[in-house]
Amino acid sequence: MEDWTQQQQAHPEVRARIRASFERQGLMRHLGARIVHIAPGCVHIVLPSRPEVTQQHGYIHAGATSAIADSAGGYAAFTLFPENSSVLTVEYKINLLAPAVGDHLEAVGTVLKAGRTLTVCRLEVFGVQDEHRSLVATGQQTLMCVKERPEQPENHPSSRPATLT
Amino acid sequence: MEDWTQQQQAHPEVRARIRASFERQGLMRHLGARIVHIAPGCVHIVLPSRPEVTQQHGYIHAGATSAIADSAGGYAAFTLFPENSSVLTVEYKINLLAPAVGDHLEAVGTVLKAGRTLTVCRLEVFGVQDEHRSLVATGQQTLMCVKERPEQPENHPSSRPATLT
Amino acid sequence: MEDWTQQQQAHPEVRARIRASFERQGLMRHLGARIVHIAPGCVHIVLPSRPEVTQQHGYIHAGATSAIADSAGGYAAFTLFPENSSVLTVEYKINLLAPAVGDHLEAVGTVLKAGRTLTVCRLEVFGVQDEHRSLVATGQQTLMCVKERPEQPENHPSSRPATLT
Amino acid sequence: MEDWTQQQQAHPEVRARIRASFERQGLMRHLGARIVHIAPGCVHIVLPSRPEVTQQHGYIHAGATSAIADSAGGYAAFTLFPENSSVLTVEYKINLLAPAVGDHLEAVGTVLKAGRTLTVCRLEVFGVQDEHRSLVATGQQTLMCVKERPEQPENHPSSRPATLT
Repeated sequence: MEDWTQQQQAHPEVRARIRASFERQGLMRHLGARIVHIAPGCVHIVLPSRPEVTQQHGYIHAGATSAIADSAGGYAAFTLFPENSSVLTVEYKINLLAPAVGDHLEAVGTVLKAGRTLTVCRLEVFGVQDEHRSLVATGQQTLMCVKERPEQPENHPSSRPATLT
Repeated sequence: MEDWTQQQQAHPEVRARIRASFERQGLMRHLGARIVHIAPGCVHIVLPSRPEVTQQHGYIHAGATSAIADSAGGYAAFTLFPENSSVLTVEYKINLLAPAVGDHLEAVGTVLKAGRTLTVCRLEVFGVQDEHRSLVATGQQTLMCVKERPEQPENHPSSRPATLT
Repeated sequence: MEDWTQQQQAHPEVRARIRASFERQGLMRHLGARIVHIAPGCVHIVLPSRPEVTQQHGYIHAGATSAIADSAGGYAAFTLFPENSSVLTVEYKINLLAPAVGDHLEAVGTVLKAGRTLTVCRLEVFGVQDEHRSLVATGQQTLMCVKERPEQPENHPSSRPATLT
Repeated sequence: MEDWTQQQQAHPEVRARIRASFERQGLMRHLGARIVHIAPGCVHIVLPSRPEVTQQHGYIHAGATSAIADSAGGYAAFTLFPENSSVLTVEYKINLLAPAVGDHLEAVGTVLKAGRTLTVCRLEVFGVQDEHRSLVATGQQTLMCVKERPEQPENHPSSRPATLT
């Protein structure tokens, strides 16, 4: 297994491709999430704590915690995919370890195994308060690399990504 | 295993308790989700499709799909919990089976096994378009029943739910 | 979603192909497991209770419970695969709901979604004692269909199934 | 999160308690598995490759891979439990990353979060051939600490561990 966790930035073209994709994710913008680090095989996403992302006790909702973890893992995989491909989440599993509290959450997706078709990521989410950083969730995710078929116009019926087929 | 999937409504007090909790979930309101069915051991949550919940291809984001699935399972478990208890998600796993499309998504959480401490739910999310309803995600979730300690004031430090401890 | 749970037997050729594969699984034979039902998209495997499959309290070990669940799901998927393909488990998740007791366990793998590349199964394991049958474990599994390359001899290095690549 | 991965041996009493429990696991003995390292929060189990643990292609079966991973995680948690308690697997999820080949497999269970009731472990399985060691599976597991009730004789009906209740 190669060490994908090195912290250097990804190639500028890869970062541009990922930022462009991230900005098309209406959910991330609506939640207030920002992508803050894009390295080869490792992406960090930050989610500020605010009432719009809470559960019934005032902590950050498991669904919001998972959403940034899923996106961090998906983009971590995407940094290693060839051009003209897209990424789909096949599945993930996440354990919520502690109440998600702090000024903000930081989700870290890290590629554990990069394959031609499937990639597996580790997901970690930290609650960050001032200098303190504690693990609030940890997970594991399977992603699929889907080759795009550029010869088909965007609105052609068969250009719809056929997940799992 | 008892059949928890019967579709009758839960007791009015249970429904009131769950609606009150759901309304405190800032995330559900922010996403536009509504709780539409509360039966013993089975809860349905609906999420209308709109740009605020999409991923980069315009489908509903796996994070939004998961968020309503997590809440549906959590409240399904909660219908069977004693008074003066709260529910915490320990973990869940979800497979995204098909692009999440439709007028809206409907998440169904169903208790498979209710225990004193831990409860296990099945999670299903359907994409609904007119009369057509197709399964877009399926998962499994573990929840914990946490007894509240009413002798402590709400803002007492030790009244913070200590997940996993 | 089609109803894969119909209980008719699979086509004789499919059953023969699956029985032949099952008999090559040294682990299943070593554990004493038998394949007892092969329907399209649904396979049952039985494991008699005996000291060789126990954990430290005398119940059947989660690893044995999982092993037959994994095989049941894998072969359930395999019933729907084209000829000249093989099946690989990508991942699975299993909840152990109750002590695995009984004369024998019966694992049921059922296809939830069959895709060209990936298939998702539900896994259930029942403890069976006389007439009584109770759910002891439930899970969810992702499988991959790998096309065999018949032009390569069996012992050719590149004929090794390259999982996840 | 404390660093549980330090490689020093656990206290002799803890090691003795774990070896005694491991030897009661009929499945581990039947598979030929051995426990080779017991540190606080980290346990290693080795499984030699032989025909009795294979799947249909001659690789080690996912069920055997999972069984040693499950036991490694369970005992890793158990090293941190109080006396007069036992450990139950609540659930786990595992990704099979590559064909499980080598002279033997080595499963490593590592505690990520230790709680009073629930503990979460990382599971890793390596295929080892001569000097080469490669990751073949990775997973995540939730375990429960069950207090034993010594006032009840072993064969008293209510001394049966009531998983999830």
